[in-house]
Amino acid sequence: MKSVSASKLTILASSLLIASAFASATAWAAPANDPATLAQIRDSAMKEDWAYERLADMTDLIGPRLSGSAGAAAAVEQVADAMRKIGAKVTLQPVKVPHWVRGEEKAQLVDYAGRPSGITQKVVLSALGGSGATPAAGLTAPVIVVRDFDELNARKAEVKGSIVLFDVPFDDEMAKGGQAGKAYGRGSNYRGNGPRVAQELGAVGALVRSVGGADFRLTHTGNTGLVDGKRIPAAAVTAEDAMLISRLLKRGAVKMHLTLTPQNLPDADSYNVIADFPGTDKPEEVVIVSGHLDSWDLATGAHDDGAGVAAAMAVIDTLKKLKLQPRRTIRVIAWMNEENGTRGGKGYFEVNKEKVEQHFAAIESDNGAGRPFGFMGSVRPSMVKYFAPLQKSLDQIGAGVFDRRDVAGGADIMPLERAGVPSFQPLVDFTNYFNYHHTAADTLDKVNPLDLKRQVAVMTSLTWYLANMDENIGRTVVPQ
Amino acid sequence: MKSVSASKLTILASSLLIASAFASATAWAAPANDPATLAQIRDSAMKEDWAYERLADMTDLIGPRLSGSAGAAAAVEQVADAMRKIGAKVTLQPVKVPHWVRGEEKAQLVDYAGRPSGITQKVVLSALGGSGATPAAGLTAPVIVVRDFDELNARKAEVKGSIVLFDVPFDDEMAKGGQAGKAYGRGSNYRGNGPRVAQELGAVGALVRSVGGADFRLTHTGNTGLVDGKRIPAAAVTAEDAMLISRLLKRGAVKMHLTLTPQNLPDADSYNVIADFPGTDKPEEVVIVSGHLDSWDLATGAHDDGAGVAAAMAVIDTLKKLKLQPRRTIRVIAWMNEENGTRGGKGYFEVNKEKVEQHFAAIESDNGAGRPFGFMGSVRPSMVKYFAPLQKSLDQIGAGVFDRRDVAGGADIMPLERAGVPSFQPLVDFTNYFNYHHTAADTLDKVNPLDLKRQVAVMTSLTWYLANMDENIGRTVVPQ
Repeated sequence: MKSVSASKLTILASSLLIASAFASATAWAAPANDPATLAQIRDSAMKEDWAYERLADMTDLIGPRLSGSAGAAAAVEQVADAMRKIGAKVTLQPVKVPHWVRGEEKAQLVDYAGRPSGITQKVVLSALGGSGATPAAGLTAPVIVVRDFDELNARKAEVKGSIVLFDVPFDDEMAKGGQAGKAYGRGSNYRGNGPRVAQELGAVGALVRSVGGADFRLTHTGNTGLVDGKRIPAAAVTAEDAMLISRLLKRGAVKMHLTLTPQNLPDADSYNVIADFPGTDKPEEVVIVSGHLDSWDLATGAHDDGAGVAAAMAVIDTLKKLKLQPRRTIRVIAWMNEENGTRGGKGYFEVNKEKVEQHFAAIESDNGAGRPFGFMGSVRPSMVKYFAPLQKSLDQIGAGVFDRRDVAGGADIMPLERAGVPSFQPLVDFTNYFNYHHTAADTLDKVNPLDLKRQVAVMTSLTWYLANMDENIGRTVVPQ
Repeated sequence: MKSVSASKLTILASSLLIASAFASATAWAAPANDPATLAQIRDSAMKEDWAYERLADMTDLIGPRLSGSAGAAAAVEQVADAMRKIGAKVTLQPVKVPHWVRGEEKAQLVDYAGRPSGITQKVVLSALGGSGATPAAGLTAPVIVVRDFDELNARKAEVKGSIVLFDVPFDDEMAKGGQAGKAYGRGSNYRGNGPRVAQELGAVGALVRSVGGADFRLTHTGNTGLVDGKRIPAAAVTAEDAMLISRLLKRGAVKMHLTLTPQNLPDADSYNVIADFPGTDKPEEVVIVSGHLDSWDLATGAHDDGAGVAAAMAVIDTLKKLKLQPRRTIRVIAWMNEENGTRGGKGYFEVNKEKVEQHFAAIESDNGAGRPFGFMGSVRPSMVKYFAPLQKSLDQIGAGVFDRRDVAGGADIMPLERAGVPSFQPLVDFTNYFNYHHTAADTLDKVNPLDLKRQVAVMTSLTWYLANMDENIGRTVVPQ
C-alpha cells in the first residue's frame, strides 16, 4: 500500500483495488509519496535558484554546445563537476558523435528580371547540420521554388542543376492555436528530407524556409538527412528571403550565387553525463530524468535544451537538500547529440539493452522552459489514476494536468520508450518555442526564472513519485 | 470662401469669421475641397495597388539604399522614371552625401571569469553608421558597461583604453503604451551621442545596446555622431549580447576582441528626386509631400522609408488618374540621406531659402506604414478648425484624427518647419515600428498592403486639401 494521508485513503481505496491487478506484489511502507513530502518537494523547488544558476553557467560561460565542439566538451565537464559537487555518482558514457562545423555562408541573388545594373540582393541563410559545401568561391545556379514534394516531383526536369527552395510557411496560427508541435512537424519535414530528395533529383543546392513563426529575419538551423559521400549544400533561408525569392520568380528567372563551406569531420569522442542517486529499497530499478546537453551552434541553447538539463540536474539537488532518498535509483542524464544523430540516446540503449526491464520510467524535458501545465506520459490508460496524488500536489502551482499519450518522451529516451519503458515529459507552453529554437535568439534571457522553477517542481515531484510508487505502472506500447 | 457643401456652411460660418483674421485676402471658388472630391480621392486610393507596386520595385528589385551606394543611385533612377511615366515634371537636385560602407564585423568575448579553457563567446553586432574601424586584425580591450552618461562620467578612469557598452534597455512597455517615440528617443540618445562622449574620455571602442523591443537577437544600426579624423569603432550589439556582457561583468572582468572594418569614404554625388504637379491658380505656391529614399544597409527599408516614398509618389498618381489638378503645385520629393546626414533636406532648404514663403505646407511620412489614424500637423492651434472637412472624409477609413503638434514634420522638412512652414505627417500606429526599423527585418512582407492604401488615402487627401485651401494657414512657430 502506498503511504498516503488518512484523508486520501478513502478516495483512493477503490482505485487501489483495481490497481492491485497491475501492481507488483511488493508493498512496503517507507514515507514516500505522502502528500506532505510531495508538497515539501514542490515548495522547495519553487524557492530555489540552483537550476537557473546551472543554466546560466552552461549558457553564459560556455555558450553553444554542438556535438564535437569545444563547447560540448566543456559542458560535459561542467555538468559532471556540478553533479559530483552535490554528491551524485557520476559516470561519463563514451559516445561517438557526428562532427559538423559551420563555415562561411552567404548568398546573393545575382540575376533576376528587373534587376538594375550593378545590383544584387543579399539572402540571409544558415547552413543546415550535415550540409555539404559549395566550392570555396561558391556556385551560381538558377533557383526554383516548390511548395511541397508533389510539386518537386512534377517539376523534376527543372530540378537538375538548380538550387531548390522549399518555400513552406510556418503556420504560426496553428502554433498559437495550441498545435505548435504539428506546425513544426509540417515544416521540419522539408528541412529533414527536402535536401536529400532534391539531391536525388539532381539539384546542386537545397534551401528550406526557416521553420519558425517570428518575422525578424531569423534563420532556423537544424539537421538535414544528407548522408556521407554525397552531400549537396543545404541551408535555411529566413522567411523574408524565401518570400523575396518567390516574389522575384513571379517576375522571371532568378539566379543565386551561393557559398557554404561547412565541414563534415570524422566522428568525435563525446559523452553522456550520467549522475546516479542510488535508491534505498530498489536500487537496481532506475528512473531516468534527463535533458540533452548538446545544442545548435547559432545560440547558447537556453531553451533547447539547457533548461531541460538544468531542471533534470536540479532533481537530485532538490532531494539532497531535503535529505530525501528515493526507493528506486534516480538517474540524471545529460544526453549528448540529440540534435544531429541522437547518438547519446542510442548508445545508452545499446549498452542497457539487457536491462530495459530495470528501467521503471524515463523522463526527458525537451520542449523548452515555457510555463509547465503538468506532464505527459506514455503509460497505458488504466495507469493514469495512480498519478492522482501527484497531480493534486502539482495543481497547487497550476501544473496538475496529466496528458496521457501513446508517445510522450523526448528523442533520447525514444529507444527505451519503444522498448516499453513508460516515458514522461513536462507539459509546457511551447506556443512560441519554435520562434526561438535552433535560432541565434535561443539565449538565457528568454527563460523565465519562475517557469524554470515550476519545471524543476514538476520534474522533481514526478521523478520522486515514480521512484517511490508502489504500483508497477507496467510497460507501454509505442506504435512502431 | 472655401467651397464646402451647403450643410457644412452653417457649421463653419463662425470659425471662418475668426479665421479671416489670419486668412489671406484671396478667396476663390474652384471645385476643390468639396466633400465629393475628397471622398473620390479617398475611395480611389483605397482601391489602388500602385503605391505597393512601387514599394515592391524599390525593395525587391533594388533592396538597401544607403547613401552613396549603388542601391541609392538605382533608386533615384527608378523613382524618377516612375514619376516621369505618370507625367510629373521631374528634377534631380544634386546633393553631396556621406559615403560610409560597412565592412567585416565580428566580436568575441575572449576572457571572463569562469571561462572554460578554449571557449570564447560570440557577440552579435553591427557597426553604426559613421563608425571608425579597428585594425584589420581587430583589437582586444576590456569592456565596461554603463547605464547612462552620469555613470560614464563617474567611471572616467576606467574608460580610457576600454570598450564602453551603453546597456540601456529599450522600454518596450513604454512603446506598447503609446509612447514609442519617447522610448526610441531615450535609447537613440546613447546611439547618437554615446560613442562620441566615450571617445572623448579615451575609450578605444563604443557599443550601444540595440534600440528596439523585439527579442530575436537583432542588431539595430543607425547613425552615430562621430566626426571625421577621430572615429573610434562603434557598433550596436543585440539586447541579448548586451545582457550577456552585463551578466558576465558581475562575475569579473570581461575582455573583448572586436573587429570592425567600415570605411568612411569621400562624400558621394547623389540626388533628391523632385516631381512636380503644377498648380492651376497658384502654381508658385508649393505643397511638398515626401518620404526619404535612402535606407539603412541591413535590410530593404520597406517601412523606413520606402513606404513613405511610395505613398508620396502615389499622391500624384491618384490625382492624375482622377484627372484632378490642384490649385497649388504639389511637389513630391524623395529625399536623399535622411539616415546619416539629412543632406537632402538641408540642401533643398539651402537652394529654396528665399522661397520659403512660397511653401504653403510640407508633408513627410517617416514613421512607417502602420495603420494610419489621421495626421499630425504643426499649425497654430487656431488653424485646426479649418481641417474639419478633411477629417470628416478621412474618418470614414478610421483616419480622421488631427493631432496638432508644435513639431510634426519628418527630419527632411525640419529646416522648412523651423523657418515657419506648417508641416504634416501621417499619424500611424508605430507601436512595433522600432522593433524593425534599422534592422535586417525591415522588409516588404512587414508592410500591410491595406495600411499602405490607407496611408495613400491620408497623404493624397491631405495634400490635395492643403493645395486647395482658401484659408491661409499661416506660419507655425517651432521651438528652436
